[in-house]
Amino acid sequence: MGNSLGTRFVVTSFGESHGRCVGVVVDGCPAGLPIGLDEIQAEVDRRKPQSSAGGTGRREEDRVEVLSGILNGTSTGAPICMLAWNKDADSSAYGEIVNVPRPGHADYTAFLKYGKYTDFRGGGRFSGRITAGFVMAGAIARKLLALSGVEIIAHTLQVGDIKANPHPADITRKNVDRNAVKCADPVAARKMIRLIQSVQKEADSIGGIVEVLALNVPGGLGEPVFDTLEGELVKAFFAIPAARGVEFGSGFTAAAMKGSQHNDLFSMRDKKLVTLTNHAGGVSGGLSNGMPIVARVAFKPTASIGKSQKTVNIETGKRVDLSVKGRHDSCIVPRAAPVVEAMMAVVLCDFALRAGITGRIIK
Amino acid sequence: MGNSLGTRFVVTSFGESHGRCVGVVVDGCPAGLPIGLDEIQAEVDRRKPQSSAGGTGRREEDRVEVLSGILNGTSTGAPICMLAWNKDADSSAYGEIVNVPRPGHADYTAFLKYGKYTDFRGGGRFSGRITAGFVMAGAIARKLLALSGVEIIAHTLQVGDIKANPHPADITRKNVDRNAVKCADPVAARKMIRLIQSVQKEADSIGGIVEVLALNVPGGLGEPVFDTLEGELVKAFFAIPAARGVEFGSGFTAAAMKGSQHNDLFSMRDKKLVTLTNHAGGVSGGLSNGMPIVARVAFKPTASIGKSQKTVNIETGKRVDLSVKGRHDSCIVPRAAPVVEAMMAVVLCDFALRAGITGRIIK
Amino acid sequence: MGNSLGTRFVVTSFGESHGRCVGVVVDGCPAGLPIGLDEIQAEVDRRKPQSSAGGTGRREEDRVEVLSGILNGTSTGAPICMLAWNKDADSSAYGEIVNVPRPGHADYTAFLKYGKYTDFRGGGRFSGRITAGFVMAGAIARKLLALSGVEIIAHTLQVGDIKANPHPADITRKNVDRNAVKCADPVAARKMIRLIQSVQKEADSIGGIVEVLALNVPGGLGEPVFDTLEGELVKAFFAIPAARGVEFGSGFTAAAMKGSQHNDLFSMRDKKLVTLTNHAGGVSGGLSNGMPIVARVAFKPTASIGKSQKTVNIETGKRVDLSVKGRHDSCIVPRAAPVVEAMMAVVLCDFALRAGITGRIIK
Amino acid sequence: MGNSLGTRFVVTSFGESHGRCVGVVVDGCPAGLPIGLDEIQAEVDRRKPQSSAGGTGRREEDRVEVLSGILNGTSTGAPICMLAWNKDADSSAYGEIVNVPRPGHADYTAFLKYGKYTDFRGGGRFSGRITAGFVMAGAIARKLLALSGVEIIAHTLQVGDIKANPHPADITRKNVDRNAVKCADPVAARKMIRLIQSVQKEADSIGGIVEVLALNVPGGLGEPVFDTLEGELVKAFFAIPAARGVEFGSGFTAAAMKGSQHNDLFSMRDKKLVTLTNHAGGVSGGLSNGMPIVARVAFKPTASIGKSQKTVNIETGKRVDLSVKGRHDSCIVPRAAPVVEAMMAVVLCDFALRAGITGRIIK
Repeated sequence: MGNSLGTRFVVTSFGESHGRCVGVVVDGCPAGLPIGLDEIQAEVDRRKPQSSAGGTGRREEDRVEVLSGILNGTSTGAPICMLAWNKDADSSAYGEIVNVPRPGHADYTAFLKYGKYTDFRGGGRFSGRITAGFVMAGAIARKLLALSGVEIIAHTLQVGDIKANPHPADITRKNVDRNAVKCADPVAARKMIRLIQSVQKEADSIGGIVEVLALNVPGGLGEPVFDTLEGELVKAFFAIPAARGVEFGSGFTAAAMKGSQHNDLFSMRDKKLVTLTNHAGGVSGGLSNGMPIVARVAFKPTASIGKSQKTVNIETGKRVDLSVKGRHDSCIVPRAAPVVEAMMAVVLCDFALRAGITGRIIK
Repeated sequence: MGNSLGTRFVVTSFGESHGRCVGVVVDGCPAGLPIGLDEIQAEVDRRKPQSSAGGTGRREEDRVEVLSGILNGTSTGAPICMLAWNKDADSSAYGEIVNVPRPGHADYTAFLKYGKYTDFRGGGRFSGRITAGFVMAGAIARKLLALSGVEIIAHTLQVGDIKANPHPADITRKNVDRNAVKCADPVAARKMIRLIQSVQKEADSIGGIVEVLALNVPGGLGEPVFDTLEGELVKAFFAIPAARGVEFGSGFTAAAMKGSQHNDLFSMRDKKLVTLTNHAGGVSGGLSNGMPIVARVAFKPTASIGKSQKTVNIETGKRVDLSVKGRHDSCIVPRAAPVVEAMMAVVLCDFALRAGITGRIIK
Repeated sequence: MGNSLGTRFVVTSFGESHGRCVGVVVDGCPAGLPIGLDEIQAEVDRRKPQSSAGGTGRREEDRVEVLSGILNGTSTGAPICMLAWNKDADSSAYGEIVNVPRPGHADYTAFLKYGKYTDFRGGGRFSGRITAGFVMAGAIARKLLALSGVEIIAHTLQVGDIKANPHPADITRKNVDRNAVKCADPVAARKMIRLIQSVQKEADSIGGIVEVLALNVPGGLGEPVFDTLEGELVKAFFAIPAARGVEFGSGFTAAAMKGSQHNDLFSMRDKKLVTLTNHAGGVSGGLSNGMPIVARVAFKPTASIGKSQKTVNIETGKRVDLSVKGRHDSCIVPRAAPVVEAMMAVVLCDFALRAGITGRIIK
Repeated sequence: MGNSLGTRFVVTSFGESHGRCVGVVVDGCPAGLPIGLDEIQAEVDRRKPQSSAGGTGRREEDRVEVLSGILNGTSTGAPICMLAWNKDADSSAYGEIVNVPRPGHADYTAFLKYGKYTDFRGGGRFSGRITAGFVMAGAIARKLLALSGVEIIAHTLQVGDIKANPHPADITRKNVDRNAVKCADPVAARKMIRLIQSVQKEADSIGGIVEVLALNVPGGLGEPVFDTLEGELVKAFFAIPAARGVEFGSGFTAAAMKGSQHNDLFSMRDKKLVTLTNHAGGVSGGLSNGMPIVARVAFKPTASIGKSQKTVNIETGKRVDLSVKGRHDSCIVPRAAPVVEAMMAVVLCDFALRAGITGRIIK
């Protein structure tokens, strides 16, 4: 268990990095949603590696196929199974992982849980490749949410020590898609690309931060005290490999703030209650408050690096110097952005349906 | 829905801040666990407000009663219902909240979801008081985990801009309980107390950070790809009012690190695989790796402050200057620490039982 | 786990037969439902033993208390905790059960699962007394459903070999409550009472069948292929101790029918599609079809009988002649009827909320 | 939602009768289970239509493909996605269903829930064809349970008014597979076949009853009070189209029995507690008691019949005489037997894993 997410819009993940395919079953999409294969494909394409941004050399075509649940371009209410066949898998480099766990990887913990039966090829279930399925599910969720006017946009906020400082108005899909690092600040974007290229030359990798915004979210979404809006979102974000931290609104900086600084004051704008600031990041008491939802997800540097690292052979107990071969992203942050977006969509969609906003979404 | 947490060790919360009681039902505790009422009471007592640390003036006796599931000091396998009756509730100050939402509070979002039927008295379901029930559940979970040698300890790492820097060996329950702010660094603790007292005089409040450690956790706990160990932990932490961010291990600082710095190298110690550093915070691939689990939770400053703040009357649309009356903590961080501890226990217990470690826990 | 039912209207049961109380937490009731304590009490009172119908001699007062979730006679959207304190418990007769399991009882299986830690007093969690909590939950669900015009009525269809044959128009709560066996056919009722009294004199017990109808149920309720309307209903019915079989519409007699006999033909009545017969029992393809839902639940005779029965001492392996003491119902069927009604209400309410009919139910 | 079953061994169904495929994702199979594609195929083949038993004329090849979760003939612990591509689908006969619902079918209720977007082709999600996926999941579950010695066998007990009376020792897979109706009583089998053929000639259909036995089930499986062993089993059985009733052990006949007749007396056999009779059908208090689990599932006659039936055009409101075209089974009971078997396996497997019997099942 553990491979299904959601209660009302249920996403079940399957597939392995170097298996036959990666895919997903989406259960709970109301009947009547118009959704084209091209729309799903377009979302998945945004997750493609960009060689200029240190992306893997793998040719990941990721042609999405819909196996069920969509008929004549419209959802039928039945579970939607989607997948992409794996074509370009080279598993030759994964032979010795069983006994020699790679530092920073899930090899060792996978061994603890699944033993030698783990599918280690290409990271198996622990590979970022699994998130292609998440993005397929996210494409359905986005389309549903769009009917209520909800928009979601993720952008790269930081790579290494390069921090973007985009003008809020510049945080658009169009701008984000203009560069290889999904950054809404073009100056920072260039610096990030240079940093990633330099790190790549060192056979090393680098971390970063993705910020995600959700606009026009109806107020009152969330199911406290345990199924809070933040709680379900962070859980979904932590399904993305390499996520190490998540914060909302003022986040960790709130720790050093006073109540009189942090409290968002209320005001009326166009006969609607708004807050003058958004330290809450759009969520209060575990419920959306109608302001933009703002979350940040910190990603660690990719574990796979060419540099030699010390590890141990589990069987013999002997020290080993390991240099990870194979083709890897030296910075996964730009590719993680569309996945963060997808998870936001999936969770919001689940809460919208739990709140009975179905009817409003679909005629 | 939304008031139950867990799949195998299921915690259901009920009660309101100024209702008859706050309580919890724990379903899934195996039969045969020896658990005394005094042990549960002792955990709940650790959550009591400390007046020297800016705690509320309320006299919260919180006498725990066990209504079911424990017979002759031993769990029977039946659901354990526990509660504390509310005795000292003064709801007089909560009359006008319906129309005049307090800045930083959940009043407005509660209104969006539950309308005027919301129990606003004392914050109702959104009050930190609800967490007394979480701690009762945590007491059961701690006892179960203790049978496997698992230890959990939370401590205040930061209050406002005061950061603790405790020696790892000093992070013990005994030390943490020695001061009113649950801080393992006595020098920082004194500064924190002074800061809180100064903030309190200003009728203001202050935020902070709690760190939690779990030691001797068996490897392989977690159910990726969605029910990751981190994912379920963060979800549980976000059930604590005022939580704004969570990170594991190196957390947000990982964003600026290289793979060669961040990857924890493997080594053998006492014939056991360990890592030389713990940037992963004890979790890799969503699974525990046997090293200490390290998480940090950022809390915003308490929303309730005596200082005058601008808000709006929802009905009339007119501006209102609001000064929140009633008795409130000016820093909830020290009281949040035992709750963070409880949530860690509850989630680890759920995963241990999911992994079939039941048998090992209880004969 | 296993003590919670439902996904959107979640009922969590707690308490033991001879513990401090029996109770329930209902999570998911929308805010704004007017519900009086007297209404809940009235439902629970219908479950009281009737001495003329072989009811237990126990004086079960079952005064319901609401601990949370209802304020000023209206639901707040918070979990509703309700319970009845146990007053008249005599556990003296349950001393030796641990080693000498009673035939037909759950003593032995409880021992297999929970060992000697089981709360055997009065049957503990396996007692019919637990269903008092189900009825409390059912009272909330009934009230919610009533807002949509849904009516539910259960009646005793059979006791031993006495079969009722009520005129459909006579199946009303009023008629059912007119006799001690909850039978809508007064002639059969008298025979049933005589049979029960005769069985009681023999220190024996007798089984029976309860039929339940749900009227005005909106069409399309259910979530196939697994969460079918029938599937969730039967699961709920089997939570009632002594249930051995469930059927819908033509049920087991459908096995001997041809399609041309069984298929319900469609027709228009008042511009609404109806079926001319109701062999389907109101459910087709796991979904309600707008016709009355008709289900029958078969109950075995009460296991507790005064007659001497052969069993075995688990510890010594020796044969024992056991005559169960204590006060027991010689026919639980009449008392099961209100519980069957409650379970129908709980499940329909869950599906109505899953279908987003919340909005229609509550302002 | 509603297309996933189980908590620990989670089966997610997808696919449509005339879509691209029917399939299933099994999440929760422990790593290390040896399972050959041929073993899964063999189970699915048992569900094939037998023309001599009134089976559909469709050539259903149902070649199973495993897309994930099994590597080198062994489960890896990852979700197992399996499917069969649909090859021989003729949807031409399903054009007018949208407006003219077929009596006895789910067309109308599907329309109520999913509107005109329903995939009506071949019954879509409501087709018995979906159960091919259930059988794939059952094949995994059977293999897991076999490691604990659990055996499951379903057989046709009744077709129309022909009742089988097999000698208990004759209820074996071998015997059951010997005839086209999966009946363990060869004399009754011949009569059943003749009855089905006669019904088929009349362009009609006939119902029946399947009995299923589970042997060597460990005691104590089940999670009362709501997740009873019976409750989860019946829910699973009702996912099979055409199921109308389920009973355990003495079932509906228990209604007419006295406690002194029904109670199963305990005895010791080979130092193990057994019951002298098995009226309980192996389940007491919602928990397995170690005796054979015995359940019976009643199936209504197939709704699709060639005979002319009255129905209504929803749009025009006019009466229509409908004769269902296409190729259909005139008795689905023999094909339902392997599905009932599969559902029993799936549910028992879920409970075994919930009880932590994982370790015992898989090294």
